[in-house]
Amino acid sequence: MASQDQWKQGPWKRYCDFLCRVESLGLSVDISRMAFPKGFFAGRRAAMARAFRAMDRLERGAKANRSEKRRVGHFWLRAPHLAPKAEIRRAIEEAQARVREFAAGVHDGSIRPPDKARFTNLLVIGIGGSALGPQFVADALGQGAADRLHPHFVDNTDPDGIARTLAGIGDRLDETLCIVISKSGGTAETRNGMLHAKHVYGQRFRHHAVAITKEDSALDKLARDEHWLARFPMWDWVGGRFSETSAVGLLPAALQGIDVDAILAGAAACDEATRNHRLEENAAALLALMWYHATGGRGRKQMVVLPYKDRLLLFSRYLQQLVMESLGKERDLRGRVVRQGLSVYGNKGSTDQHAYVQQLRDGIDNFFVVFIRVLQSGGTSLFVEEGATSGDYLHGFLLGTRQALAENRRQSITITIPRVDARSIGALIGLFERAVGLYASLINVNAYDQPGVEAGKKAADAVLALQKEVVGALSDEPRTADGIAADLGADPETVFHLLEHLAANGRARLVRPGPPDVAAFTRT
Amino acid sequence: MASQDQWKQGPWKRYCDFLCRVESLGLSVDISRMAFPKGFFAGRRAAMARAFRAMDRLERGAKANRSEKRRVGHFWLRAPHLAPKAEIRRAIEEAQARVREFAAGVHDGSIRPPDKARFTNLLVIGIGGSALGPQFVADALGQGAADRLHPHFVDNTDPDGIARTLAGIGDRLDETLCIVISKSGGTAETRNGMLHAKHVYGQRFRHHAVAITKEDSALDKLARDEHWLARFPMWDWVGGRFSETSAVGLLPAALQGIDVDAILAGAAACDEATRNHRLEENAAALLALMWYHATGGRGRKQMVVLPYKDRLLLFSRYLQQLVMESLGKERDLRGRVVRQGLSVYGNKGSTDQHAYVQQLRDGIDNFFVVFIRVLQSGGTSLFVEEGATSGDYLHGFLLGTRQALAENRRQSITITIPRVDARSIGALIGLFERAVGLYASLINVNAYDQPGVEAGKKAADAVLALQKEVVGALSDEPRTADGIAADLGADPETVFHLLEHLAANGRARLVRPGPPDVAAFTRT
Repeated sequence: MASQDQWKQGPWKRYCDFLCRVESLGLSVDISRMAFPKGFFAGRRAAMARAFRAMDRLERGAKANRSEKRRVGHFWLRAPHLAPKAEIRRAIEEAQARVREFAAGVHDGSIRPPDKARFTNLLVIGIGGSALGPQFVADALGQGAADRLHPHFVDNTDPDGIARTLAGIGDRLDETLCIVISKSGGTAETRNGMLHAKHVYGQRFRHHAVAITKEDSALDKLARDEHWLARFPMWDWVGGRFSETSAVGLLPAALQGIDVDAILAGAAACDEATRNHRLEENAAALLALMWYHATGGRGRKQMVVLPYKDRLLLFSRYLQQLVMESLGKERDLRGRVVRQGLSVYGNKGSTDQHAYVQQLRDGIDNFFVVFIRVLQSGGTSLFVEEGATSGDYLHGFLLGTRQALAENRRQSITITIPRVDARSIGALIGLFERAVGLYASLINVNAYDQPGVEAGKKAADAVLALQKEVVGALSDEPRTADGIAADLGADPETVFHLLEHLAANGRARLVRPGPPDVAAFTRT
Repeated sequence: MASQDQWKQGPWKRYCDFLCRVESLGLSVDISRMAFPKGFFAGRRAAMARAFRAMDRLERGAKANRSEKRRVGHFWLRAPHLAPKAEIRRAIEEAQARVREFAAGVHDGSIRPPDKARFTNLLVIGIGGSALGPQFVADALGQGAADRLHPHFVDNTDPDGIARTLAGIGDRLDETLCIVISKSGGTAETRNGMLHAKHVYGQRFRHHAVAITKEDSALDKLARDEHWLARFPMWDWVGGRFSETSAVGLLPAALQGIDVDAILAGAAACDEATRNHRLEENAAALLALMWYHATGGRGRKQMVVLPYKDRLLLFSRYLQQLVMESLGKERDLRGRVVRQGLSVYGNKGSTDQHAYVQQLRDGIDNFFVVFIRVLQSGGTSLFVEEGATSGDYLHGFLLGTRQALAENRRQSITITIPRVDARSIGALIGLFERAVGLYASLINVNAYDQPGVEAGKKAADAVLALQKEVVGALSDEPRTADGIAADLGADPETVFHLLEHLAANGRARLVRPGPPDVAAFTRT
């Protein structure tokens, strides 16, 4: 072993110097294994001060979301007294009170399905910001058989996937509550999932259905007209990917039996601690600064999120949206083309050590790791050999991998939380929400819009419209994609793709197989 | 709409020219949306010819794995007649026959647990190459309640995660078969998982236990000495990440009720089709060439795998290991430092459109997409509006996103399969296994070793050894990490981490909270 003096000047000193502890949460952020140079903090201090001021303005209610001209208020969700207007404060408090009340009513059976004494299962239909947070929290904090309601999710417009979820509910559908979540109220995947649910519920659907959406959206009107069980609000000033502490996240969690007040308290405590303008004391600011250091402020490296804890498996999927949709922008706030972003992937340790740590340690150095270290092992404390539990192994693998990466000059951040509980999950959500906002300021992009997601939807609408024309153009005479496309003035490639798709699903017939310019189809 | 002439010279011609169809599988690979320049194929033809020859040598039994001096024979698993020695052929055929026979015996009740008529559940304990393939296949091809045995997985040394899996089995443990998979027979996570299983099974464990491992490994000896129900072989010449068509993948799948002969046939048909040296007709070669084009042969872009099908959600996790552990190497075959790799992430569409397609379309152009298009929608064909099913939407979103990316010059490959079935899954596995091997030749790295994974394990062993010393150094006097580290001649940071971990798990007591160089601990 090395002599004590060596450690005094080395990693230990750096660790002690740069460990940021949030005492109210027992949470810490360790940036000592990031290779930022001397003077890095000094150099970014002015930019960070601007980011803090921008965040302060946001929290005071400035309309920072320029492209959509709306406020950005997810931080008020866990501190309603900070909302800039009394009506916003009341709206938050009322929604939270209604979530608690509704969950209590479902739990005590005063809100119940027509033919059963209790709701026992929960079907959540949503996608993106209306699914990733609820799925992460349900998996992280679920208690299996002890859950008050057992959650199931439909997060896609895949009829086979929807059938699997419904089969998982099986004959308990008559005691299953169904929450449909869409901020805009017009998300196609969610609408389709709801229609599949209606198809199996039949007439009784409205007695099982709850909507979470903006007032007067298509979904809101439907729920009102059909007299659904309840409607909960979403607001302009909460982005989908920042909505986990709104009804979107709180209602499913409360129904499952998760302590949503502890989630809110954890997020609030993290917010409080990360409003600090002294950047060395601000865990969110340190994260943002490290992203800047690692990627040159240009997304040049990828963030590999590695929680050593099975329950945190879905955190990286949640972060993919929070980080990539917020930062992945073509233009900066001055309209210049910057093509920004920060790619995120990862599953869990030590499992991923056996998948790709080979590349992380030896291969291309295009990443930095964010380890998430959970102090309390949980489960059954089984000594697998003298003096060592399986949890000691898990912890040892984290430290060992962090060390093996550092030996090869691969960088990592380590976030430590005391245990996987509602308070810590709330804190992690708050921590990354703020880090994203601060980092967006550092690179001067708008973290709160998503102009690029419309293009794919519009192109898909065009495909679906073309499909109807293609169906109409089929006859009993064999026709090629070329021929139909010429008639319709359409792209033959898309026509060919549609013909293949229709034939595979019994709505066209492939009568002459062959390459795309040869294959011919008739109607069925 | 554009005039027909425009399409003739544009994307349609390119699509027809570059679509590679594997007719025996109904599979196609479309590289028309990759922006490789004219002359790219001509320029890589000689390198590709070398790669084909290297692959031919491998398949004929050359000891291509130089660092470990062993053969690489995963292709023989689905074509035993190609094995270079009769004893290898016999070993494969015998193992496959035993898998079929064992599964049939379990299904018909002739192999059964001591106190029940049938095994109904299956607990698979493994990690990395002993888990990712089985998990992917179980999820892709499982039939829910109709499964012959219901699979559960332990793939980590997380006591809480293990407890959750065991709780999911609940009181059906006495009808649960337990397969322990470790090629080396010495994987710590798997050993720990097995010990947790033994802990809950108690004395009856051996009547439920099956091992898949190399002959005479520690696991093999244990299973033999304890008279487990059965042992199945792994061989030196099958790498863990290439083992899905060995007993590792076949046994759990067969027990679940999946048609493993169709998996083998699909992989064999893909192998057959991709032995073709004419690269335009070789789907695996085209994938490898496109990786080369997209990344400059240096891993400069990431591969985003987007299957538009819920059942293929785990494919990207499987590919992370197959691709990154194979290609992520420090040195090339001549020993030069090259730091190679190809990063892989992705979940599923259209779900991921709502997570990060914003960044893919508008943000940093550091990726290429591999879309996986499944022709048959499956599930309940529900018309969600006139002329359009939810499956049409899924297909439309794929085409729309592909188009929206292309408009912004983001590149993509589209792999089409007819449906999610055992044959197509086998084909996808074979396709990527071969693409990885060919690409490794193109960049001159060894795809079949993993020298970098040992470092983390060694460092973890050192941490666990130190933990025992730290426990021994605790007393009733408050001690700091610094103090204990000085006594032990150890790194104070690791000592501090261990003290925090021990205190959180009731094996030390934090008596003076504070920063790392202040906090003091006693024994409990």
